Amino acid sequence: MAGQDIEKLVKIIAKLPSLGTRSARRIVLHLIKKKESALLPLIEAMQGVADNIKTCDICGNFDTSSPCAICESAKRDKAIVCVVQDVADLWAMERSGFYHGQYHVLGGVLSALNGVAPEDLNIDSLFNRVSDGEIKEVILALPATIDGKITSHYLVSRLKDTVIKTTTLAQGIPVGAELDYMDEGTLQLALNSRKEI
Amino acid sequence: MAGQDIEKLVKIIAKLPSLGTRSARRIVLHLIKKKESALLPLIEAMQGVADNIKTCDICGNFDTSSPCAICESAKRDKAIVCVVQDVADLWAMERSGFYHGQYHVLGGVLSALNGVAPEDLNIDSLFNRVSDGEIKEVILALPATIDGKITSHYLVSRLKDTVIKTTTLAQGIPVGAELDYMDEGTLQLALNSRKEI
Repeated sequence: MAGQDIEKLVKIIAKLPSLGTRSARRIVLHLIKKKESALLPLIEAMQGVADNIKTCDICGNFDTSSPCAICESAKRDKAIVCVVQDVADLWAMERSGFYHGQYHVLGGVLSALNGVAPEDLNIDSLFNRVSDGEIKEVILALPATIDGKITSHYLVSRLKDTVIKTTTLAQGIPVGAELDYMDEGTLQLALNSRKEI
Repeated sequence: MAGQDIEKLVKIIAKLPSLGTRSARRIVLHLIKKKESALLPLIEAMQGVADNIKTCDICGNFDTSSPCAICESAKRDKAIVCVVQDVADLWAMERSGFYHGQYHVLGGVLSALNGVAPEDLNIDSLFNRVSDGEIKEVILALPATIDGKITSHYLVSRLKDTVIKTTTLAQGIPVGAELDYMDEGTLQLALNSRKEI
């Protein structure tokens, strides 16, 4: 293959999530062929992110300012905090457009297997926020996995001495799903949590 | 979603080949989280490619110099030219490591449907190289598609008045393939071109 610079770029791109060597090669060729319309704007946009994006000191979100736009916004309900595992989950909640409270990004979930303890996550800062007294409800929007459940359980046990309401996202059949394709656990849970209509 | 810079970068990355919005979001989050170890080296490598990579005036390959390292190399056979559709195909041939001649990148194949005529491709420059008299064999390594075949046919018809040998890559069953998964066309062709062992 030609050019040390090209090989180096292919190697770096191949390590990005959801990419491999083959797609990295395709991307690099595309970028070289469209230098003005693809490569240079991409470099500029990346430099913009590198220069301007910070982690919000309050909630852990990524934004151009800290505190972030959500923490600063007068339109968002300061009494509700939604606890998520990752900024990706915060973005997913924001895309739905139905949530108007605050967030708290843990940066992971507790995991005995991966050696993740409470002190490895942004948990202390959550309790600092809670102890300020402004927060009335904590919504736990953690993954529906065993580690996610354990983390929720841990947070509930530490919150139960406060007067704060703790809730969690409803579980059941996703919108548009075929029953046929649902796993047994989800079906059982949806049946147990059935609602009168 | 937070941050104009982030949204802009997601949109640009989502347009790259083999990526979409979902994987672009994952990549951008990864880059923000690993700014020092992923984002900054990526920007540097892209800037290196943007600054240094040129198109070879002789063969159409991408390299840090023009003529490229292959055209310049004293170790490569100057009497053989392998004609390929794209630089990606040149890379694929180089990875195999078995070819030691020169290349000529057409930049596409003739296509009535997409309105690609001979003057849209690097065909004239191929005949200029051929008329210099150093080239003794032209290997047509174009795609095994209808447009690829038409392009090969066109090149053969224009080369037939010269003394140059024109060859094409063998077609048949790929190494490691199960007959069961081969299409009828390939099986027929492999049967017709069978060899005594």
